[in-house]
Amino acid sequence: MTSAPSSSSSSTEHRFVDIHPVLSDGNDNVNRPRDRQSCNTAVKFRRGSGGGGGDIGRTHPQMSTFSRQISLESGMAVLNMEKKNVKGGSNGNTKEEQRVLLRNGKSLGGLNVAGGDASQRKGDFSIFRTKSTLGARQNSLMPLRKENEPDPNHGEGVPGSTGADDRVNKSVPAGRYFAALRGPELDQVRDYEDILLPKDEVWPFLLRFPIGCFGICLGLGSQAILWGALASSPAMAFLHVSPYINIALWLLALVILVSVSVTYTLKCIFYFEAIRREYFHPVRVNFFFAPWIACMFLAIGTPPRWVPKHLHPAIWCAFIAPVFVLELKIYGQWLSGGKRRLCKVANPSSHLSVVGNFVGAILAAKVGWGEAGKFLWAVGLAHYVCVFVTLYQRLPTNEALPKELHPVYSMFIATPSAASIAWNAIYGEFDAVSTTFYFIALFLYCSLVVRINFFRGFKFSVAWWSYTFPMTTASLATIKYAEAAPCFVSRGLALSLSLMSSTMVSLLFVSTLLHAFVWRSLFPNDLAIAITKSRNGGAKAHGKEKKADRKGYDIKRWAKQSPLSLVSSIRKGNSADKDSEGK
Amino acid sequence: MTSAPSSSSSSTEHRFVDIHPVLSDGNDNVNRPRDRQSCNTAVKFRRGSGGGGGDIGRTHPQMSTFSRQISLESGMAVLNMEKKNVKGGSNGNTKEEQRVLLRNGKSLGGLNVAGGDASQRKGDFSIFRTKSTLGARQNSLMPLRKENEPDPNHGEGVPGSTGADDRVNKSVPAGRYFAALRGPELDQVRDYEDILLPKDEVWPFLLRFPIGCFGICLGLGSQAILWGALASSPAMAFLHVSPYINIALWLLALVILVSVSVTYTLKCIFYFEAIRREYFHPVRVNFFFAPWIACMFLAIGTPPRWVPKHLHPAIWCAFIAPVFVLELKIYGQWLSGGKRRLCKVANPSSHLSVVGNFVGAILAAKVGWGEAGKFLWAVGLAHYVCVFVTLYQRLPTNEALPKELHPVYSMFIATPSAASIAWNAIYGEFDAVSTTFYFIALFLYCSLVVRINFFRGFKFSVAWWSYTFPMTTASLATIKYAEAAPCFVSRGLALSLSLMSSTMVSLLFVSTLLHAFVWRSLFPNDLAIAITKSRNGGAKAHGKEKKADRKGYDIKRWAKQSPLSLVSSIRKGNSADKDSEGK
Amino acid sequence: MTSAPSSSSSSTEHRFVDIHPVLSDGNDNVNRPRDRQSCNTAVKFRRGSGGGGGDIGRTHPQMSTFSRQISLESGMAVLNMEKKNVKGGSNGNTKEEQRVLLRNGKSLGGLNVAGGDASQRKGDFSIFRTKSTLGARQNSLMPLRKENEPDPNHGEGVPGSTGADDRVNKSVPAGRYFAALRGPELDQVRDYEDILLPKDEVWPFLLRFPIGCFGICLGLGSQAILWGALASSPAMAFLHVSPYINIALWLLALVILVSVSVTYTLKCIFYFEAIRREYFHPVRVNFFFAPWIACMFLAIGTPPRWVPKHLHPAIWCAFIAPVFVLELKIYGQWLSGGKRRLCKVANPSSHLSVVGNFVGAILAAKVGWGEAGKFLWAVGLAHYVCVFVTLYQRLPTNEALPKELHPVYSMFIATPSAASIAWNAIYGEFDAVSTTFYFIALFLYCSLVVRINFFRGFKFSVAWWSYTFPMTTASLATIKYAEAAPCFVSRGLALSLSLMSSTMVSLLFVSTLLHAFVWRSLFPNDLAIAITKSRNGGAKAHGKEKKADRKGYDIKRWAKQSPLSLVSSIRKGNSADKDSEGK
Repeated sequence: MTSAPSSSSSSTEHRFVDIHPVLSDGNDNVNRPRDRQSCNTAVKFRRGSGGGGGDIGRTHPQMSTFSRQISLESGMAVLNMEKKNVKGGSNGNTKEEQRVLLRNGKSLGGLNVAGGDASQRKGDFSIFRTKSTLGARQNSLMPLRKENEPDPNHGEGVPGSTGADDRVNKSVPAGRYFAALRGPELDQVRDYEDILLPKDEVWPFLLRFPIGCFGICLGLGSQAILWGALASSPAMAFLHVSPYINIALWLLALVILVSVSVTYTLKCIFYFEAIRREYFHPVRVNFFFAPWIACMFLAIGTPPRWVPKHLHPAIWCAFIAPVFVLELKIYGQWLSGGKRRLCKVANPSSHLSVVGNFVGAILAAKVGWGEAGKFLWAVGLAHYVCVFVTLYQRLPTNEALPKELHPVYSMFIATPSAASIAWNAIYGEFDAVSTTFYFIALFLYCSLVVRINFFRGFKFSVAWWSYTFPMTTASLATIKYAEAAPCFVSRGLALSLSLMSSTMVSLLFVSTLLHAFVWRSLFPNDLAIAITKSRNGGAKAHGKEKKADRKGYDIKRWAKQSPLSLVSSIRKGNSADKDSEGK
Repeated sequence: MTSAPSSSSSSTEHRFVDIHPVLSDGNDNVNRPRDRQSCNTAVKFRRGSGGGGGDIGRTHPQMSTFSRQISLESGMAVLNMEKKNVKGGSNGNTKEEQRVLLRNGKSLGGLNVAGGDASQRKGDFSIFRTKSTLGARQNSLMPLRKENEPDPNHGEGVPGSTGADDRVNKSVPAGRYFAALRGPELDQVRDYEDILLPKDEVWPFLLRFPIGCFGICLGLGSQAILWGALASSPAMAFLHVSPYINIALWLLALVILVSVSVTYTLKCIFYFEAIRREYFHPVRVNFFFAPWIACMFLAIGTPPRWVPKHLHPAIWCAFIAPVFVLELKIYGQWLSGGKRRLCKVANPSSHLSVVGNFVGAILAAKVGWGEAGKFLWAVGLAHYVCVFVTLYQRLPTNEALPKELHPVYSMFIATPSAASIAWNAIYGEFDAVSTTFYFIALFLYCSLVVRINFFRGFKFSVAWWSYTFPMTTASLATIKYAEAAPCFVSRGLALSLSLMSSTMVSLLFVSTLLHAFVWRSLFPNDLAIAITKSRNGGAKAHGKEKKADRKGYDIKRWAKQSPLSLVSSIRKGNSADKDSEGK
Repeated sequence: MTSAPSSSSSSTEHRFVDIHPVLSDGNDNVNRPRDRQSCNTAVKFRRGSGGGGGDIGRTHPQMSTFSRQISLESGMAVLNMEKKNVKGGSNGNTKEEQRVLLRNGKSLGGLNVAGGDASQRKGDFSIFRTKSTLGARQNSLMPLRKENEPDPNHGEGVPGSTGADDRVNKSVPAGRYFAALRGPELDQVRDYEDILLPKDEVWPFLLRFPIGCFGICLGLGSQAILWGALASSPAMAFLHVSPYINIALWLLALVILVSVSVTYTLKCIFYFEAIRREYFHPVRVNFFFAPWIACMFLAIGTPPRWVPKHLHPAIWCAFIAPVFVLELKIYGQWLSGGKRRLCKVANPSSHLSVVGNFVGAILAAKVGWGEAGKFLWAVGLAHYVCVFVTLYQRLPTNEALPKELHPVYSMFIATPSAASIAWNAIYGEFDAVSTTFYFIALFLYCSLVVRINFFRGFKFSVAWWSYTFPMTTASLATIKYAEAAPCFVSRGLALSLSLMSSTMVSLLFVSTLLHAFVWRSLFPNDLAIAITKSRNGGAKAHGKEKKADRKGYDIKRWAKQSPLSLVSSIRKGNSADKDSEGK
């Protein structure tokens, strides 16, 4: 009983040391609703800290919840620390270092606060490394965590990743992305979320290079087609557009597609885990169609003087095969099995996973395989109806649907425009079906244009490029329509829409150049791929022996609280503190 | 302590005065579930009254909750009264006047009980007045309330109302209509809801004149078209229908359209606020399409001898412009932003907002603008699919969908019928598309007809007129079909459907005349537009200083309940009983 | 106080007698979540039994929840028993018989534990008997229960059952099936559910004969058509298929259809209640279309040498009439009224209720009634879009949708295939519409085939037959497509799909024969029709006087529990026992 006061003060000392960084942090995560699991824990710890840290609570009543949270983590940190040191990790940090450790959003939670100091974690991007390149780092933190954690939807992995990697490369559940991210593109981390990588330093370039960069190729490729159509369409002959614009744009698009592809291939080689996380991201997954659609755009937009009348069907096969495989995968996820129900994951960028069919149908018609085009068109139609209705309903389960208008809504225009062009290409005439789809696209275009806050107030990102190709596709469909119904109105519409889309692409091009080379802010840290796999991800990921320890610890703290066992709880609290100090 | 008894007795005196009217009222709002906010309050007050009125509870146990509720409001009334008097409003009512105030559903809650006496509130329809006509009443009750209340979805206002009016003309949230109203047309106020206007007196005629009256023009206009088609269609030539029926009906429809339009324009001028509330009503908003559809019906049904082959396109432009603007607005609400998601607001009358496209397409074909007709048809198709699927799914979020069959379901027939006629009119032949839509309409017709309780057990209202034009449209489509597939069956079907729709219109016409001129019950008080903007709307709308006061009051009552003040609470309870007996 | 020990011991004696059978039962229903209503009851009784049966609880702490549950039922049993005996039922069983009654899942709940002993209940299948055959058993258990129970959705009954039967034949609510059953076909009873019939003995054959048996006729009938098409199609002429295969299969299908129909008619005569329960089953109801679709398959597949070019339209009328009536009923349930919303009951077998339209359209074209075919095709299209979108969305309300892939998903292929064939048959050419639907079916086929776990891990049942006809329909559509687009690929596809479907049918045929004649396990007990009408169905079904009694009983037991009123509770407990015995 004589040692009680001193140890008790040491316990509160730990608590106190951590409190200040948290307070300076703004502490967003205190008043948030938690799920039931963590709520129970919270209640237990609240009581615990209320007893152990009673005099803190009395002197600073507004800090009672803070102390509750911190005491949880510092308590764990104490326990973890011993384990780490026993395992002989490379972290030679002492307690004094830990106490001054800033906890400003770049931690893995309590575990990593203990497990690695700031200097080591600075370069710890290996968790997103391809597993084959990890080599000697196999005993590092991340695989250790993954091993011990069963995954709820392990059947959802990418087709290629089976066997030995499965143990390591578990996917993040779909709901997790919605819980941890926000914004119409799910690209911003919610304030109270920790992420796996440091927020305040620049990540490696490849990690910051998102799949959305293929949007640039989409935008430029469709522009190449547009200027080719403007140059060659009889309806637009009055413009006397030079075919060289088409060639220049096409070459530019080709160059950029090649460089983006090479870069992304490098990312694929070195940071395959990051790509896996992009694949499981409910919005990003649709952008996996973008590379192939961009390729098909280039194939469709090939300058007419360079190609014979029909491209070789092998081109179509090469580009449509990955699209088809992805479709089997993603539409299958919608339809059957797993949590990625359409009513949950549908968002405007889902149009990207449908529009590939129609672009493929156009290319199929271009290579002379009409029946294949009809097949793709039918597949596209069926899923377009589903996506369109689902998005229009805005079901309450559609968590990703933006509250406000956003450039991503321009995706709505892309699919009916492409369907119209594709039908025209396959069946050779701009008949009622083409017209109907074209006018649907036109109405949606109007519907977006009249909303003046459309392109305002949003931060530029590379993903915006993806939102230009719908406008270009609509322009292309208008040109086709102007061919079918040549009159002043249709030609004027085609001209103005083409100008709008070209202007938009030019603006974006300049913007992108400015961001890339002047402000050097084109590729910010790609926070969306670095979310933890579960709320308080790091803290609870330490496996079974951790849980057992924690439970024991809970029980100790809990026991402290009951008035009858005051003496024993103080004694136990002392021994716990002693352990943490005696290590 | 000497002054305490007197003030306490005055407080409880008020309580007593109000109890009796509430009891005689049936008191529907006592046992209702409340939202959490009010529930907490209720609990607090229940305890308060349970302590304060302990012997009341013993002698009249069934009145314990009543006394709870009334004590809340009378308490507020006391507080408000002083404030009002300080503000020097025009209400020279003394406490004695308040005591005899009946509180039978026409109050604004506790606030207005205090703020205006019955004689003044009798004519207080100015809250629905157009703001420009308010003039000197700017310091009246309503604007005062509105000023203090931030609106959650202020972005949803009608396009015309911006700037200075915004402060006053906030819209009622969409969910509020579902919460406060019931019935398939959301035209009945739930029992526990207060409304802003008195229930027991007849409102001004213009306030009772709903937008649904344009349904009469829809019904008569479509009948005019029907009898024109019966007279002129080669398939129905065997009937030898006189073309003068068409002319007579058309003139009648024109007269009624003009009178309804003039009346509604007057309402628009004098009671713009009421129209705003109709616009935000999830069912009524669809009826804003009705005037323009009725105009298009008249244009389509113009007797052939009066018009050349093609009407002038300006007619089409004049009538379709408001429809198109409304569509941009309403479809935009479905798709993006705000709370008026399609999965929430969809109800059978949503077909009205889709059918306008098809009627417009018919008129476009009539004025010779085929491409414009195709555009409207495509827009209609896209949104028809969404509305049809959504309504068929009957999502749990679809709060407005009637539990039982109701005439409003006849709307289901209108859209495919009109789509069929429109396709026929645009493309010049009754081909597979027309046939498909026609047969969908026919099946839905059968599906409704076989349900014998279809037109039974529902109170007549003007809105029923809107439910006749689908039958007429189906008859028209059948006539077109009979032209395309002339046989005994199709002609018989066309004849019988035409007879059914004409019979129904005749019955409604007689009904309407009876209600209008004999029973004088055609325009009951339009309760749906007078709901409060929030549950306990008036009571909680008094702004921040009110909340603070109320909180203080809560705390006082709450403190009463603590066991330390047992004696005082019993004493107060006694005095309350004495007051109630001594009156 | 002297009488207290004796009465208390009598109460616990009852309890004790029942505990052992329950323990031996595995007692699946103890730790399940209950709905709020029963949860409250549980809490009350838990406390009650904890007090009354304290010494049991002390000696066997793990049995506390068991004793809780049993005490509820034994307590009720005591009360019920006297009532039964007063009513003079045929059950002369004494308390001693009840005590040894096994309660292993075949009970009707507490009520029937009291009301009938095991030997009597063994053959008590009369609850599913057609009411007209019940005769002298009118005073038996089941009707007695039903009389006293108001039904929430009594408007949902089958059309034929009105008037006097209504009182007896109330339907099971839709939600009940989802609550009590599981599996993609809702054919397995959840572990914690009681069923009305004994699980451990073989039921009468007719009760075990499900409506799904018509799936055999679907499978064989479609095979007959397929082999007819293989023999006669010019595209498949290179196979030189003998037309006698068609004849043989057709005759086999006819024989099986006749025998299944006769059997099911017998079931209809003797166990109409069982059929009613199949009709209200959300999955089974779709199989009510199967007999008529099978008949239409036979009519379509009639060997060409036996029939003239056109069948007589009367055949079409005879087979489509019940389909049409069912559709009016079921689509009406989706659209309006009742709880069977499409968003709730949609499951892959809903395709069966849509595909009838397309099969009917094919037959209509075969009998020369093209317009009737167009009508059915339009109806089918409208509802196909709804079902397709709803299933693809996988709304959270879709409780019946299987989590994993399952043969039932093959239903997805049937409808577009049939739509394609029907359009071809009606309009005489395999045009864009046919092609589109065909390719949609083909994509869905691919989408299912690539999932390797498709036909694995599921127990064989007769319902599997229903999942073969989609494959056959797809093969047929492919043959039609190969006729329209004759090339190597289309013919190869037609050949391979035909082989796949024939192989599957052969495998199933052998399987069925093995199950039927070797393992004799073709028709297991059809548990899905024997679920109780509500959770703890039997226990709560005793009507109002029972509820009143129970409430009184609850209050008494509740009062027992408070520590301060120990004496009075014991006294009350005594009086309660006395009451129940003296009454």
